[in-house]
Amino acid sequence: MGIYKLGHVEARVPDLELAAAYYTEVLGLVEVDRTEDRVYLKAWDEHDHHSLVLKYAPRYGMEYMGWKVESLDDLERFENAAEEWGCIVERVGDHELLATGPGIRFETPSGHNMMLYYLMDQVGNGLPKTNPPPRPLELVGIAPKHLDHLLLTCEDVPETSRFMSEALGFRLVEQIISGEGHQTSAFFERTHTTHDVAFIKGTNGGLHHYSFWLDNISDVMRAADILRLNGVEIEIGPTRHGISRGHTIYFFDPVGIRNEVFTGGYYVDPVQWEPITWTEDQIGKAIFYYEGKLLPSFQGQHS
Amino acid sequence: MGIYKLGHVEARVPDLELAAAYYTEVLGLVEVDRTEDRVYLKAWDEHDHHSLVLKYAPRYGMEYMGWKVESLDDLERFENAAEEWGCIVERVGDHELLATGPGIRFETPSGHNMMLYYLMDQVGNGLPKTNPPPRPLELVGIAPKHLDHLLLTCEDVPETSRFMSEALGFRLVEQIISGEGHQTSAFFERTHTTHDVAFIKGTNGGLHHYSFWLDNISDVMRAADILRLNGVEIEIGPTRHGISRGHTIYFFDPVGIRNEVFTGGYYVDPVQWEPITWTEDQIGKAIFYYEGKLLPSFQGQHS
Amino acid sequence: MGIYKLGHVEARVPDLELAAAYYTEVLGLVEVDRTEDRVYLKAWDEHDHHSLVLKYAPRYGMEYMGWKVESLDDLERFENAAEEWGCIVERVGDHELLATGPGIRFETPSGHNMMLYYLMDQVGNGLPKTNPPPRPLELVGIAPKHLDHLLLTCEDVPETSRFMSEALGFRLVEQIISGEGHQTSAFFERTHTTHDVAFIKGTNGGLHHYSFWLDNISDVMRAADILRLNGVEIEIGPTRHGISRGHTIYFFDPVGIRNEVFTGGYYVDPVQWEPITWTEDQIGKAIFYYEGKLLPSFQGQHS
Amino acid sequence: MGIYKLGHVEARVPDLELAAAYYTEVLGLVEVDRTEDRVYLKAWDEHDHHSLVLKYAPRYGMEYMGWKVESLDDLERFENAAEEWGCIVERVGDHELLATGPGIRFETPSGHNMMLYYLMDQVGNGLPKTNPPPRPLELVGIAPKHLDHLLLTCEDVPETSRFMSEALGFRLVEQIISGEGHQTSAFFERTHTTHDVAFIKGTNGGLHHYSFWLDNISDVMRAADILRLNGVEIEIGPTRHGISRGHTIYFFDPVGIRNEVFTGGYYVDPVQWEPITWTEDQIGKAIFYYEGKLLPSFQGQHS
Repeated sequence: MGIYKLGHVEARVPDLELAAAYYTEVLGLVEVDRTEDRVYLKAWDEHDHHSLVLKYAPRYGMEYMGWKVESLDDLERFENAAEEWGCIVERVGDHELLATGPGIRFETPSGHNMMLYYLMDQVGNGLPKTNPPPRPLELVGIAPKHLDHLLLTCEDVPETSRFMSEALGFRLVEQIISGEGHQTSAFFERTHTTHDVAFIKGTNGGLHHYSFWLDNISDVMRAADILRLNGVEIEIGPTRHGISRGHTIYFFDPVGIRNEVFTGGYYVDPVQWEPITWTEDQIGKAIFYYEGKLLPSFQGQHS
Repeated sequence: MGIYKLGHVEARVPDLELAAAYYTEVLGLVEVDRTEDRVYLKAWDEHDHHSLVLKYAPRYGMEYMGWKVESLDDLERFENAAEEWGCIVERVGDHELLATGPGIRFETPSGHNMMLYYLMDQVGNGLPKTNPPPRPLELVGIAPKHLDHLLLTCEDVPETSRFMSEALGFRLVEQIISGEGHQTSAFFERTHTTHDVAFIKGTNGGLHHYSFWLDNISDVMRAADILRLNGVEIEIGPTRHGISRGHTIYFFDPVGIRNEVFTGGYYVDPVQWEPITWTEDQIGKAIFYYEGKLLPSFQGQHS
Repeated sequence: MGIYKLGHVEARVPDLELAAAYYTEVLGLVEVDRTEDRVYLKAWDEHDHHSLVLKYAPRYGMEYMGWKVESLDDLERFENAAEEWGCIVERVGDHELLATGPGIRFETPSGHNMMLYYLMDQVGNGLPKTNPPPRPLELVGIAPKHLDHLLLTCEDVPETSRFMSEALGFRLVEQIISGEGHQTSAFFERTHTTHDVAFIKGTNGGLHHYSFWLDNISDVMRAADILRLNGVEIEIGPTRHGISRGHTIYFFDPVGIRNEVFTGGYYVDPVQWEPITWTEDQIGKAIFYYEGKLLPSFQGQHS
Repeated sequence: MGIYKLGHVEARVPDLELAAAYYTEVLGLVEVDRTEDRVYLKAWDEHDHHSLVLKYAPRYGMEYMGWKVESLDDLERFENAAEEWGCIVERVGDHELLATGPGIRFETPSGHNMMLYYLMDQVGNGLPKTNPPPRPLELVGIAPKHLDHLLLTCEDVPETSRFMSEALGFRLVEQIISGEGHQTSAFFERTHTTHDVAFIKGTNGGLHHYSFWLDNISDVMRAADILRLNGVEIEIGPTRHGISRGHTIYFFDPVGIRNEVFTGGYYVDPVQWEPITWTEDQIGKAIFYYEGKLLPSFQGQHS
């Protein structure tokens, strides 16, 4: 099976208290643990110890992304594969990171810190394992069900795509191709959804956004209310993507990291899928199907 | 990866024209092909040639279920595994069945005909592979997106569970346990959803229902309208399951096969999932969370 | 304009604390005021002081229904009209009832206590009158927007219909006619919705249910979750009415009064509407369009 | 009762065929009748003969708006009231206009042609009056349920407000007030919804948009899909208004008239409502609550 899931993201935030307050009260994640310089959060329906780590740092951004693998053998296999691509791979011991099993860590050709790991401590979703109700009685804020995917930026999308496919076994679901025939965006899956991670052209090592899952369009509409009632600015949405067909809202956490809430998509056959291609003249529809045009702000990070 | 998806079901129907009319006009599947005694159907967002085959036969029921595997090696591996369980395994040649790659066929200990196969001809979902809109302009009837799962009956649920897990690699997601501690229902996944197939106590070889996927609760409510506008009786729903948390409607096709439309559920970690257990005194909530009690009709087939 | 709105209902409850806890925490009404033997409640988006009064009494039921009229002249006009029908009409002084303007009170031919009154003290909906957000940030329980309508029982539906139309100016929207041509149910409006009050055949003076408004089908589905999470039994629903086309759930408060949450319906032209007629052989569809049959429990009060 | 409903709008369109095709196939109105230079349309759930008339004319815009009154006496009363305000009032004979009862016609101080009329021929909503299903089986396009409201422009909003209130009995629901304390927008009701007609500052006699009603947010989201699948540009939305709290999409018909689909709002007590005031510094939120800012295009007509 190899990599089977985006497990967690560590984000750098210049104001830990402000960020933690936003992620728990507005986005509605659950605070699970806290150390001197880190806050560990999970979405309510996740069972793993955490899916988002806020780490104090002077400049906001993504510290690393953590992906779950099926077995210890996978770690060794990916260690070899990444080294063959020239990556310097570091071993991470069992519970060297809080609540996290053994893993490997390396920088991808796209300039992102990537961790692969086997197992995370289970804390459960707050519902009993015997005769559980379908949801908790009380939820705070938007309360997405789980971390869904990442959108990252890099200088060389085709090179990054090859690494993701050949070294790590990601499958290409959709892509944007420029007029000259170059791949400028690439969307990859390991969960047979429309994307677990995607790359668009930009600075190496950049984070465009991370995205949290909602079950229904009506939850997306409700999320827009909650954001605005809390004074959070919406960048765009509720709207719909052409790529992935998902319904979406983009907005920013208080330190400037773009967040998304997302629902929808389609099943991707991991064996027989033929990627969808968008031509760059249709990029407006590809990104925002209702607006039909890109947002000026959307290409970069928040300033 | 092994088995990765419920690919198709062949249903026996005593009136092929009546059944085909219902499945295309009310449920809103697409007729892809037709032979003298069979009609081949797919849901609109499936790319495989078919997911439901209607076969003329005097008595309604499930002829077989077909599951997709990742590779030719898997076929050999499962052939051995099934034979070790005492199944008589038959090879099916490439395109011996319409549009279907090579496979194996055997009867499970639960008395169901099971086919595993590698590849199916792709017909696409009617949208272009370049710059596709998010949905077709015209859809007929309920128009679910894809076949989702099966519920089958068998005499010995624990034995069937062992076969599904040990021989075929299915993972147990939820189960019902009787007062005496016997497993009376078992829900299994291969797609990290709440169930791709489930078994409840009953006649060996029986089909309780097959289920089609809708994206939203509002689509489930709309499906109820469409069923009734077409004079189709609803057995129960719109309601919600305790098991799987899904929103659901049960109803019958014109020959007596129970259908379901379904949305919801949750992500199942294929490595670290601990099964949910329902105790039989809570079976009402487990099956129909809103009603809190079983339907008298629900245990059996339509009569 | 005459009568323009169902203003409030006073319900008799044998356990005031239990009922108040349910109506505030589960249904999600707001407690506005309290006296020794009464609790005054409103739905969050109502501006009037109260729409539901719980009054301690040994036996549950409806004490009276209060309807708002446009002017003091209306009171005099309806006083005369009711007296012409043989009702004994009593004047109620300004603020003789808490927060309530002057009115008249009488027993209808159907055996119900009816109050008509002019003005109620305004307490607002909790949102500012300048630059209000579209909803409060925090809502508790189901949190319907307002009291919507009543369903009452009486022995002589045609006689009651004549009184409602001729004496009080209600307009008939829908009705059920028995095989012998007798009207057995009648639905009346004053707000150009499908019904503000309806009568079905039963005991004189009986209350079948009162109903609260939700804006969307997704709110109805969410209400079902909240009821069950709080251990409240659902009588039926989420389902849809043939009459009124509304989406609905029926359930009981802890003292046995049937509640409904409701959304949908259609605009009724108060000048040119021609009533819809249901024949009694279609009563199943008329009441529960999805089930197509009446519930045994539905005809009576809770026991 | 006086004026009780916006009955119909006559729109001038420079291309009758193009406009008729759009309104029937994309918006999903029903064509009821057609003369040499006019096409008569209704929304599916309206019973009146028409609610939108397309009239051939070289320049697009609103020819007149037609409002229904309760009685012939109302016509005489409003004739006097309008004349007192200096309007020149013209009588319109019974069926002088197709399918339309007797009325009066005059130009408002805001420069709009206004017709008040008593009765329109009934054509029904396509469902039987005995045992009707809750909706037709087949609907085309967006298929709103009825015409909902108008937004008009005028030079002097306070003067227009006085005319609407004092001469015609409209009730002010919400308003925008400039920093200098001048009323720059005013929203009026006669149906106890948030608005049947509104005025914003602009050219006298101008039409900003007309709006059609949908029952649910999910229908609004579906409308966005249908517009884009048909190649119709969306000006803004799906989004939410601060004023009225409604969920909305704005878009243009092929001749340049702005259309809206709308759902939501709240009940307005016609006797005790205290208007909501928006200050101009909050106009962004007032108009588009999610975006928090006005659209540059939004102030004017399409160019």
